[in-house]
Amino acid sequence: MSKPWQNENWHVSHWNYLDEVTKGFKPPKSVKIHDITLRDGEQQAGIIFTKDDKIRIAEKLAEMGVHRIEAGMPAVSPRDEEAIREIIKRNLGPEIFCFARCMERDVRLAADVGAKGIVMEIPASQHLVEQGYQWTMEKAIDLSIKATSIAKEMGLYTVFFTIDATRSDMDWLLALVDRVAKEGHMDAFTLVDTFGVLSPHAASYFARKVIERVSKPVEVHFHSDFGMGVANTVNAVMEGAQVIHTTVLGIGERAGNTPMEETALALLTMYGIDVGIDFSKMNEVAKLVRELSGMPVPPSRPFIGDGAYNIESGIVTGWFKNVFEAHPTTVFPVHPNFVGHDTPQILLGKKSGLENVFLWADKIGVELSEQEAMDVLTEIKLLSHDLKRVLNVDEFRELIDKVKTKSATAKSS
Amino acid sequence: MSKPWQNENWHVSHWNYLDEVTKGFKPPKSVKIHDITLRDGEQQAGIIFTKDDKIRIAEKLAEMGVHRIEAGMPAVSPRDEEAIREIIKRNLGPEIFCFARCMERDVRLAADVGAKGIVMEIPASQHLVEQGYQWTMEKAIDLSIKATSIAKEMGLYTVFFTIDATRSDMDWLLALVDRVAKEGHMDAFTLVDTFGVLSPHAASYFARKVIERVSKPVEVHFHSDFGMGVANTVNAVMEGAQVIHTTVLGIGERAGNTPMEETALALLTMYGIDVGIDFSKMNEVAKLVRELSGMPVPPSRPFIGDGAYNIESGIVTGWFKNVFEAHPTTVFPVHPNFVGHDTPQILLGKKSGLENVFLWADKIGVELSEQEAMDVLTEIKLLSHDLKRVLNVDEFRELIDKVKTKSATAKSS
Repeated sequence: MSKPWQNENWHVSHWNYLDEVTKGFKPPKSVKIHDITLRDGEQQAGIIFTKDDKIRIAEKLAEMGVHRIEAGMPAVSPRDEEAIREIIKRNLGPEIFCFARCMERDVRLAADVGAKGIVMEIPASQHLVEQGYQWTMEKAIDLSIKATSIAKEMGLYTVFFTIDATRSDMDWLLALVDRVAKEGHMDAFTLVDTFGVLSPHAASYFARKVIERVSKPVEVHFHSDFGMGVANTVNAVMEGAQVIHTTVLGIGERAGNTPMEETALALLTMYGIDVGIDFSKMNEVAKLVRELSGMPVPPSRPFIGDGAYNIESGIVTGWFKNVFEAHPTTVFPVHPNFVGHDTPQILLGKKSGLENVFLWADKIGVELSEQEAMDVLTEIKLLSHDLKRVLNVDEFRELIDKVKTKSATAKSS
Repeated sequence: MSKPWQNENWHVSHWNYLDEVTKGFKPPKSVKIHDITLRDGEQQAGIIFTKDDKIRIAEKLAEMGVHRIEAGMPAVSPRDEEAIREIIKRNLGPEIFCFARCMERDVRLAADVGAKGIVMEIPASQHLVEQGYQWTMEKAIDLSIKATSIAKEMGLYTVFFTIDATRSDMDWLLALVDRVAKEGHMDAFTLVDTFGVLSPHAASYFARKVIERVSKPVEVHFHSDFGMGVANTVNAVMEGAQVIHTTVLGIGERAGNTPMEETALALLTMYGIDVGIDFSKMNEVAKLVRELSGMPVPPSRPFIGDGAYNIESGIVTGWFKNVFEAHPTTVFPVHPNFVGHDTPQILLGKKSGLENVFLWADKIGVELSEQEAMDVLTEIKLLSHDLKRVLNVDEFRELIDKVKTKSATAKSS
């Protein structure tokens, strides 16, 4: 592969790779996916994964090759604890992590179920600590030091996770991290944007500041409240962050977490960083999480929406007809097969053009003259407008019959 | 308002405003919204807006105060032409634009319906011109010069729009823009990322390069194939782009266009740029487009999803209880009222905690002891797991009865 922006599977902007654009990038040697679908993903109000659901999703994530699975918080319910135990027992491949508050009980539970690692949360912004938790700031520090020390004793890989860090004081945050690293324990530190309130420019800044100061590996946990999850995660990676926390479909608290699909594919195609998952499983994984979460997925959802590769417009159908066979990534920046999506469909509706008509006529083995096709198109536009939807093949046949009958009558009269 | 990152309506990261983060920003004096819901939005395969739909949406957009409405392409169908005429006739406030191919017929139609301006598209990448259209590159230049000259004659504000610019050659693109500006006509130039293939870093580069070279105002038209529409648009604005092309709900071809909601709110809260719309109408506008487009909207959709402000988790409910009344933006970065969203709901499900139980008990006027609440919570978690959904108030009452009966029996035995 000579050009990282273009090959048989994708074709993105070559400007992404210009020196002027990439100068200052400090990407890590490799990037790992820490999947949080089963924890922060499930935390989306109204999503309930059963024990069996969690096991099925973990199996599918393992098949796709994610590196870590945050399987949940054992303290949530006995069923959650059972699910985590079962996932660990199956030895699926990915490292299994638990999420935990900085409480001895949570840490012991994580060790007890046999987790490899633990993500330990503590609030870090003054308003959340003092108002939300009604603690003193010192209490947050003390709890962090105590709980992470216990995690060390238990042999857990300890990822320190500061809630609402992006609305905290940077000096206080860095001091907290220093103290926990020295007096408690920390194997990695996570950049956390709990409320998704970080601009892309500030995401780079946050990562840069922390990486300059903290000698541990840095992970990224961002939310999409302003639609910035993907961009912010990518920006942090280009400053050196090594592990990205993502969910399938971007499910998660409020507006959701950073979605795995767009992030992994942006890193791959726009930045030349392969997170090493099997991209062809992407639609299969998304379908399972969609089914089990019950969340509606817009047809336009990137890469995994039912209609993400459909075309109705006449202009675009013209491009499709002319290039799809020889150069599929001219009309779709990522080839549908590469992400395991169905074959693109050409729809017939109000915005269609002659090419759509000829493609459909071909499919059902009907020949149309240019004039007939134009007449059929006029009828399609009217009917689609009045039905307020695209047409099916029976409706298409009827319109052809109508036009052919009319032209035969005209000829014979 | 002393702090741009925090007031009664929002609370985002103050890091967004640090000198180190904002250095190099060259924002324009003001940013306008060019709404393309009725054109590129409708171009999403399967969305059909009727004539009446288009008028209703235009009226609602005008109420919200968008500056421009791209009402469609008159050439699409007689109904579309009628819709555009009707929208113009109503004189709603926003400037009404038409979209057009670089064809004399399209330009004359736009002038004929009475549009204020025209967005004129021409393919710009070699592969799309030569393969997709099967033209020579010179033909693209000739058509652009001819058609924009006619637009000038017709007195149309002419926005030149180069399809697939982000996979074109920058020198060729800039030469095209130069020639059209000199030999044809151009009031503004649009940065177009037709296939959403631009990284955020390259989006800044694209805007910078064009703004350095082109003396006309620059507009931005980006897509969300990799989830980058919002970030890329914001990045271009911070290089000086003055008009942003967005759709309600981010509907649009394939994975959609840059969504208005997140983009306008990110500019407002994270960058201190008020596009001047009435933000409290946002949910009303989104509801209308959702209804008329028939597109499913995930409950987690930022700002406008049905569940974007719901909470089920016990930990977050604790924050909510402690801070929402006095400091609502501690738990929701943007106040629900500010964007016209319903009041947040606290749900009862598997991930809930004691605070959820007490809040619900309060609502129905039942007193619970700490032990009873814990027992009810255990039952909630089990039932929610087995039903695979959150509970309703009747189910909650039944669980309370069960627990109270059990504890009465225990006491009397």
